[in-house]
Amino acid sequence: MRVAGLISGTSVDGIDVAVVDIDTDGGIQVVATAIAPYAPEVRSAILSVSNSTAHVATIARLNFLLGELFAEALVQAGVALSSIDLIGSHGQTIFHQGEAVEFLGSKIASTMQIGEAAVIAERTGIQTIADFRPSDIAAGGKGAPLVPFLDYQLFRHPEHARVALNIGGIANITVLPANATRDDVIAFDTGPGNMVMDALAPPFDRDGACARAGTVNTALLERLLAAPYYQRDPPKSCGREQYGAEFVLETGIDIATAAELTARSIGLAIGRYPETREVIVSGGGAHNGYLMERLGALLRARVTTSAEFGIGVDTKEAILFALLAYQTYHGRAGNLPSASGARKPVVLGKISRGTKPEDSA
Amino acid sequence: MRVAGLISGTSVDGIDVAVVDIDTDGGIQVVATAIAPYAPEVRSAILSVSNSTAHVATIARLNFLLGELFAEALVQAGVALSSIDLIGSHGQTIFHQGEAVEFLGSKIASTMQIGEAAVIAERTGIQTIADFRPSDIAAGGKGAPLVPFLDYQLFRHPEHARVALNIGGIANITVLPANATRDDVIAFDTGPGNMVMDALAPPFDRDGACARAGTVNTALLERLLAAPYYQRDPPKSCGREQYGAEFVLETGIDIATAAELTARSIGLAIGRYPETREVIVSGGGAHNGYLMERLGALLRARVTTSAEFGIGVDTKEAILFALLAYQTYHGRAGNLPSASGARKPVVLGKISRGTKPEDSA
Repeated sequence: MRVAGLISGTSVDGIDVAVVDIDTDGGIQVVATAIAPYAPEVRSAILSVSNSTAHVATIARLNFLLGELFAEALVQAGVALSSIDLIGSHGQTIFHQGEAVEFLGSKIASTMQIGEAAVIAERTGIQTIADFRPSDIAAGGKGAPLVPFLDYQLFRHPEHARVALNIGGIANITVLPANATRDDVIAFDTGPGNMVMDALAPPFDRDGACARAGTVNTALLERLLAAPYYQRDPPKSCGREQYGAEFVLETGIDIATAAELTARSIGLAIGRYPETREVIVSGGGAHNGYLMERLGALLRARVTTSAEFGIGVDTKEAILFALLAYQTYHGRAGNLPSASGARKPVVLGKISRGTKPEDSA
Repeated sequence: MRVAGLISGTSVDGIDVAVVDIDTDGGIQVVATAIAPYAPEVRSAILSVSNSTAHVATIARLNFLLGELFAEALVQAGVALSSIDLIGSHGQTIFHQGEAVEFLGSKIASTMQIGEAAVIAERTGIQTIADFRPSDIAAGGKGAPLVPFLDYQLFRHPEHARVALNIGGIANITVLPANATRDDVIAFDTGPGNMVMDALAPPFDRDGACARAGTVNTALLERLLAAPYYQRDPPKSCGREQYGAEFVLETGIDIATAAELTARSIGLAIGRYPETREVIVSGGGAHNGYLMERLGALLRARVTTSAEFGIGVDTKEAILFALLAYQTYHGRAGNLPSASGARKPVVLGKISRGTKPEDSA
């Protein structure tokens, strides 16, 4: 079955596309990947409504506009639409609060992704599944993380314990014990990913050259690593606001120390699982040669990237939503309760069937 | 097949529930209806985000809270959930603009309904279809009106021309020529429904007693009826803002004249179709005995209500969304392009499958 996955991430750079062939035993072959960057005014509009006050007209219009752009991004990826059986679209998150808060007398967790699936289905003529996170929240989960499902499907090993490490703004790991069942999977945020480094060398320190050239402030590093978060037992997650501009200002951290903080905090997290044989890295941080070197030196496990498994380090999330759509299409659950906190596995997402000519009768 | 329909209308009073049995030839038997009024603070919160500026957190939380309330409203309707095969939920509209406007360089029509379907599906264990309007907009339609599909299914007659008249805030008609095909159906807003009367005697003039006791200001009435809107050819629609408080202030209209304006403007619209044999009334206005009398006097056709056809005048919209869900479930179109302006009939809505225990494997 050929499935397309679409996502625009929290960095709001553009739309990631992956087209994959999924065989009946869940094996994934990547057919094509593409990135469709947003026009600056679209990016600004998304940022202006994200986690802030806006007119509902702007949100509604952006939802439909992003539907058009997501469909266009798939068309531009150059795979014949007639060969694609299904689309899984994450959309663009503009609000997410997985922990329930008091709201009009009820405890409410919530999430909101935009990128109208009805538009994607209509423009492509392909059945489109979207809105994956609300189903997990409805089942008592935090609507995140969803990526451990892909890690479990692709990276678990009958004899080796593995860790899938994603280094985005925040770094997070999926722990896959040898011969893991779904319930054995553990997933949590380890601490900063690229976020602190990016703030010190915007937009980013390509290959880690700046960090490599600097000197680690050992006193500051040890003080930062003493923060209780790194010692706390999972499940745990850290906010993106935690390692932003304020953190940089308050600590006076330099980029060499930031890189080392990232590597060491990841090392502390993975160190909890000493049986780990391989660490499979993805996310933007996988491009940072210096960071990868430091991880190699700090970890006892072999450090590799998801590319070794045919999963490009930048396209893992788009592939995830192709896989989750495939699950939903077959009426199968797509969340991992041990990762998201849901009460049970549930079928994720909403299906826009699209209209084939024969349906019109 | 037993299907539940759920909607909260533009008056934001509460959730209308209808549970119906639909047989294979499209016949509908109403099993139960119920209304679950909103708590005042929920109503206020909905009004505060509707067509206005709000924090996206409020919209996201309201979406999930309304999902809970919609599910609860169905539970309270007293029909065993295990007997219900499918739910169609319209949700609560918080923004609708069927006509495309310029937005970041594109022409964008949009609509937004809240009342998270994933929550409804999870709480009830029943497959839930929602978000009907975006599919019609994606196909070039205005996302409204959708009710002509129900009128066409239930009220068309092989030999008689009929008009289905809904008197809500605005009044609108569905014209069903004798032996109509889908393409023959015409639907448009006739002008004010209850809105002007309601503004003069809030919350409403029960049975029309105030209007009956008053005296029509004939000069004002004729001046108002000379407005070009009433003469214009369909398709046409009038905004709800058009007959609100400002209209009342500017015209100095009294309630007797308002009732007569409603009746006469409906009469002008139906008068375009002199072959009409029956007018089938639904909506709140059907309870206004004085208005119904005036319509009976003004129209040459027989005036009756949808109740004669087993469709309660207050539950027609909830029944509509049960019927539209039934269509989508069977992969069949649910819009009428001649009414909504869509380029073609399309399968409406998004399907939240819900999770049966065996799916979790």
